[in-house]
Amino acid sequence: MRIAVDAFGGDNAPLEVLKGAQMAVQELGVDIVLSGDKEAIEKCAKDNNISLNRIEIEHTAGVIDMHDEAKVVLKEKRDSSMGLGFDLVANGKADAFVSAGSTAALGVGATFIIKRMKGIKRVALAPIVPSFGNKFILLDAGANVEVRPEMLRDFGILGSVYMEKIEGVQNPKVGLVNVGTEDTKGRPVDIEAYKLLKEAPVNFYGNLEPREIPSGECQVVVTDGFSGNIVLKLIEGMGKAFSNTLKDMFYKNTVSKLAALGVKGQLNDFKKKMDYKEVGGAIFLGAKHPVIKAHGSSDANAFKNAIRQAKAIVEKNMIPEIEETLKGLQEKKEEKEND
Amino acid sequence: MRIAVDAFGGDNAPLEVLKGAQMAVQELGVDIVLSGDKEAIEKCAKDNNISLNRIEIEHTAGVIDMHDEAKVVLKEKRDSSMGLGFDLVANGKADAFVSAGSTAALGVGATFIIKRMKGIKRVALAPIVPSFGNKFILLDAGANVEVRPEMLRDFGILGSVYMEKIEGVQNPKVGLVNVGTEDTKGRPVDIEAYKLLKEAPVNFYGNLEPREIPSGECQVVVTDGFSGNIVLKLIEGMGKAFSNTLKDMFYKNTVSKLAALGVKGQLNDFKKKMDYKEVGGAIFLGAKHPVIKAHGSSDANAFKNAIRQAKAIVEKNMIPEIEETLKGLQEKKEEKEND
Repeated sequence: MRIAVDAFGGDNAPLEVLKGAQMAVQELGVDIVLSGDKEAIEKCAKDNNISLNRIEIEHTAGVIDMHDEAKVVLKEKRDSSMGLGFDLVANGKADAFVSAGSTAALGVGATFIIKRMKGIKRVALAPIVPSFGNKFILLDAGANVEVRPEMLRDFGILGSVYMEKIEGVQNPKVGLVNVGTEDTKGRPVDIEAYKLLKEAPVNFYGNLEPREIPSGECQVVVTDGFSGNIVLKLIEGMGKAFSNTLKDMFYKNTVSKLAALGVKGQLNDFKKKMDYKEVGGAIFLGAKHPVIKAHGSSDANAFKNAIRQAKAIVEKNMIPEIEETLKGLQEKKEEKEND
Repeated sequence: MRIAVDAFGGDNAPLEVLKGAQMAVQELGVDIVLSGDKEAIEKCAKDNNISLNRIEIEHTAGVIDMHDEAKVVLKEKRDSSMGLGFDLVANGKADAFVSAGSTAALGVGATFIIKRMKGIKRVALAPIVPSFGNKFILLDAGANVEVRPEMLRDFGILGSVYMEKIEGVQNPKVGLVNVGTEDTKGRPVDIEAYKLLKEAPVNFYGNLEPREIPSGECQVVVTDGFSGNIVLKLIEGMGKAFSNTLKDMFYKNTVSKLAALGVKGQLNDFKKKMDYKEVGGAIFLGAKHPVIKAHGSSDANAFKNAIRQAKAIVEKNMIPEIEETLKGLQEKKEEKEND
């Protein structure tokens, strides 16, 4: 198993990428191929005493930065650390790709360099979201601001197979984000998607009201990329505001500081539970090979966990299984039409 | 000033409605006209020692319940406590209407019985949302699941005049909910609305990323009713999950219970700040007269605060001022077209 990792993606590149790669080699037993400036990587490894055992470097000097348009990954900046990473996977030199670089550019590369699975119209950005109850997968979190009903159905299937195969959730509940629970609620796209999901080979929960999302009642949360981006970023913003409130609450005076000691264990448990670094990155589901977007501010541990996800997807044969499911759906549809 | 109040709307009707009406008479100096079953209201007042001084009752036996379709308020159930309340305002017998009944039915009544202001295409549901920083008005929170760009522009104007006149916020910032800050981000409707809001007579902040919403950075948060409903209900759900987490944290053992005492004041301040009952109800902005939807689980204090809002809107002449602004916009548009 060889995982390609973009050595120059994210705020903490290349140091944290290298550390994460080393941890992955040691703890997960995978081989890593880093894409990026060879000299800079070797210097960083040497300066920080990081072993490059089982870590290969594919050299390229270019980097995609946040000001670049997403599509540059296809042509103008194909020779960037990200473009090269995609090519390593597309050419069979690696089994999966992990990068903390631009989400939009990763979406373009996943769609047009890695390419979509047969039967999938759109690749969805699917982060694993930590929550108060069970963690859940959210799709689409921003790759497609507008969708058609079939795409929402496919997102449900993609997320469902992921949670079952990779996260070990038995029969995960698939919820369609909507303004009410009745099947007549929402926009035309939601009403139509409700019907399709009801027929799909998933454990369809029905419409999921947004106030139920944080509890993790549904382990697969399906919506368009505009709404999904709101869900993801609002949870992030509320989490941050809440943690600031806790800080202010406890740091107010001596009494409150003592109070903080009394719930220290609980505070740490909570912090750990809500930490995105523990749950892994966002997957571009629907692409032919695993493409994982690690959080922009990932540290070594977050990179290791993103590599762990990539490894699990390959190892557990997730993508062929999804393709089988989609093929079955297609055949069923054709049978129906021939009836 | 006479405020019509639906005596049979909400989970705690009629008792909490009556208590809230009495508080409003005493504290706000308004006259109240209650719509609903006269005998039941009088019995409830007597049993609970509530004075009906300056509270009139307009009798009707019908009630709209949560299983009714929204449109029944127009015909089949026009003689319900809600339908009658609307008619009291439409016929000039009251200046504003407050109800904790079905949001959908209230939206239909506001649009078709009270009717829209001149130049307004859609009435928006606009709750005041408590937040970690400043409270803000959110529109649309669910009345229109699909919108056109001009509607989003109008929502910005409606919310802006409300926050300035009623909440006393100088030059409130108007943010358009979007997946990124650049003016090229979002769906076609958002990109177009961005241009219109930039030209509109409001303090346009630009695109507002959902993670910035909870801080109250913008005091007017504009989006379509589907997205707005997600924002409102997700904030509600996250708030509830936080408060459960805090409870679990502090009630774990003796030490943590002692710790809770050390931050009791801060916990109460936080609870009060996030309490929707303190901030008032949701306004159907765009209707010709104030229509306020109080939370379904409103207590007396929440009803009083919703009545306070209704009173302020009438007293401060908010609706004529919005109509002036819209007229100015229309004239400017016509001038441009004639150029």
